[in-house]
Amino acid sequence: MFNHEPAGYTCPLCVVVTDQRAAGVWSELVRRTDHATAIICPRWWPGNAGHVLVLPNRHYENVYDLPAEDAHAVFDLTRDTAIAMRHAYRCHGVTIHQHNEPAGDQSVWHLHVHVVPRYVGDTFYGDRPRPVPAPAARRREYARRLRAHFG
Amino acid sequence: MFNHEPAGYTCPLCVVVTDQRAAGVWSELVRRTDHATAIICPRWWPGNAGHVLVLPNRHYENVYDLPAEDAHAVFDLTRDTAIAMRHAYRCHGVTIHQHNEPAGDQSVWHLHVHVVPRYVGDTFYGDRPRPVPAPAARRREYARRLRAHFG
Repeated sequence: MFNHEPAGYTCPLCVVVTDQRAAGVWSELVRRTDHATAIICPRWWPGNAGHVLVLPNRHYENVYDLPAEDAHAVFDLTRDTAIAMRHAYRCHGVTIHQHNEPAGDQSVWHLHVHVVPRYVGDTFYGDRPRPVPAPAARRREYARRLRAHFG
Repeated sequence: MFNHEPAGYTCPLCVVVTDQRAAGVWSELVRRTDHATAIICPRWWPGNAGHVLVLPNRHYENVYDLPAEDAHAVFDLTRDTAIAMRHAYRCHGVTIHQHNEPAGDQSVWHLHVHVVPRYVGDTFYGDRPRPVPAPAARRREYARRLRAHFG
């Protein structure tokens, strides 16, 4: 219900799930479970580098559509990612966002949860700065740190 | 782990769960399940009135501490609240936030999820406006609308 995905949409997050090498993000994979995947977000806030997207492996557009089994798997990986981030990044807190529909700030039509490392005095909320593209080499480094924590 | 609750803390959300009348929010109760509770938030953004807090009935400080059973119940009620809100408020989207630790913008030491109604062109993100206290009569009205949807 309340869907906005256009006809013929090629879902970039389904590509990540089904063919990580083709998606060019293999090295940015944080963790994969039976029903959910975590990757480093290709855009991040300048003071909050290395934030993670957690998504269901199956394609659902938004929270209204998400069945319980997939939702619970997404949550479990979200929590595990928050704990890994807190240890691996030595951040001071974690903020979790999930956006639904264009008016809710959603812009990719496959549900995803933002898991954001926070620091005392950072600039995450507010008008500025806005998110910027994350260089691939730095994304790989953050993914490596999280994977090392997961072991 | 990574806890900030002070010694002797009187948890306002535990009071909501265990004695809603004493907490003065009985009429602002949206829904209660075996493991989670939804209430109208006592503060809201001026353009996003009626936003909801979803919390585990048992006391856990943050996402790192939350066991799977409670987490899944919180998520299920979060999703059901988002759907109810989308219908009952006729909003255009829903944004979900969850904050951990002071650096992550947490200020009440019982985990809670913000479920926020969004509207095209609203002012939810950005420096201004900031959240304001929500008048009790308006909170009751929003709670009534959500409860009517749940039936």
